[in-house]
Amino acid sequence: MSNEGVKVIEIKKSVFEDNDKEADKLRDELKDRGIFLLNLMSSPGSGKTTTLKQTVNTLKDKYRIGVMEADIDSDVDARTISDCGVHAIQLHTGGMCHLDAGMTKQGLDELTEEEVELAILENVGNLVCPAEFDTGACKNAMILSVPEGDDKPLKYPLMFSIVDVVLINKTDVMPYFDFDMEKCKENIKKRNPNATVIPICAKTGEGIDEWCEWLSKNVDEWRA
Amino acid sequence: MSNEGVKVIEIKKSVFEDNDKEADKLRDELKDRGIFLLNLMSSPGSGKTTTLKQTVNTLKDKYRIGVMEADIDSDVDARTISDCGVHAIQLHTGGMCHLDAGMTKQGLDELTEEEVELAILENVGNLVCPAEFDTGACKNAMILSVPEGDDKPLKYPLMFSIVDVVLINKTDVMPYFDFDMEKCKENIKKRNPNATVIPICAKTGEGIDEWCEWLSKNVDEWRA
Repeated sequence: MSNEGVKVIEIKKSVFEDNDKEADKLRDELKDRGIFLLNLMSSPGSGKTTTLKQTVNTLKDKYRIGVMEADIDSDVDARTISDCGVHAIQLHTGGMCHLDAGMTKQGLDELTEEEVELAILENVGNLVCPAEFDTGACKNAMILSVPEGDDKPLKYPLMFSIVDVVLINKTDVMPYFDFDMEKCKENIKKRNPNATVIPICAKTGEGIDEWCEWLSKNVDEWRA
Repeated sequence: MSNEGVKVIEIKKSVFEDNDKEADKLRDELKDRGIFLLNLMSSPGSGKTTTLKQTVNTLKDKYRIGVMEADIDSDVDARTISDCGVHAIQLHTGGMCHLDAGMTKQGLDELTEEEVELAILENVGNLVCPAEFDTGACKNAMILSVPEGDDKPLKYPLMFSIVDVVLINKTDVMPYFDFDMEKCKENIKKRNPNATVIPICAKTGEGIDEWCEWLSKNVDEWRA
């Protein structure tokens, strides 16, 4: 992997007291500029970066895409995405467990120095804290992977209740885990009857088309 | 599963400014009372509760065991452990993403109303925030599961640097994931040359004896 094209931004703790207000302000700005921002969340190791690679490869001829990889330390993820041929930057959170709207804006300001239509934020791997902070994104997505278990919507209720779409990843290993897809969908529905649920396998590409259609539809509606 | 024997404690945010001081105070108290406290951390879905079930079943004839299950909402885990025939309570963190020493003490005070020699805290499923707060435990353990990937020590550096032992769980699914055990051990060593690493499979019982020997040795040394 090359290091070219990867900028690392050390983001600072936000100074704003009212994160919700800052998030709304950021969304207004995105609307004016015709930029759709997706906030992608999940546990560590559920396949955010692999899913993003598939997403970027599917949609990069349709939209100018920019990706912000939030990570506590390394810059591995931004390099992986950059190698797909889209603009990617790494955000270092300095140990912070989530991004809020002010921190997201710091990243966006760097990212959108180049013209971007679809901006994607890969949030810190964490099912708890990122759910508590509106980043200013137009839509919130999360990945739950099969090995994590079908009971996670019951145990991390806030995360499942605030997302617009849940991608159930790693469906290729379903035979090796006690994971009941229908039960999982029921558990998600209990927390959030409006969430779209799409089973995918980022490794094999299964379900990626359906996910990219969902995303395109939302990007186009936002930018209309 | 029965509901008997499960007490749910709604723990409050700590009022102490100096968590490290409170943690040391709690450890002194544990030493005086002959109680060994283990803090068990991991991502959501890495197998903390299944590992605890195996641990409890292996050691319950040797020690009086008490388990605190920290969770944002449900009480499923405490019921599962209680069904193994040991004392278990559920701590509700009210959305908090970690436990500090003051919160741990609130749980311990309830748990040790019955005499306990080995107390185990199952922390909130999160690889970020729990690493930042000393709970007052005598030893810190974490689980990394095979599906999460061998690169996690590079991406969640603080967690791997503060633990005494890393259990690498779900070894039964190694053939279905790109997980390099030797590379994972090297990555852990980079963060923490002193950590003991034990591959286990909580589902099949593989490695549980080695883990329980490590734990027993540490309990006996602490209580000597």
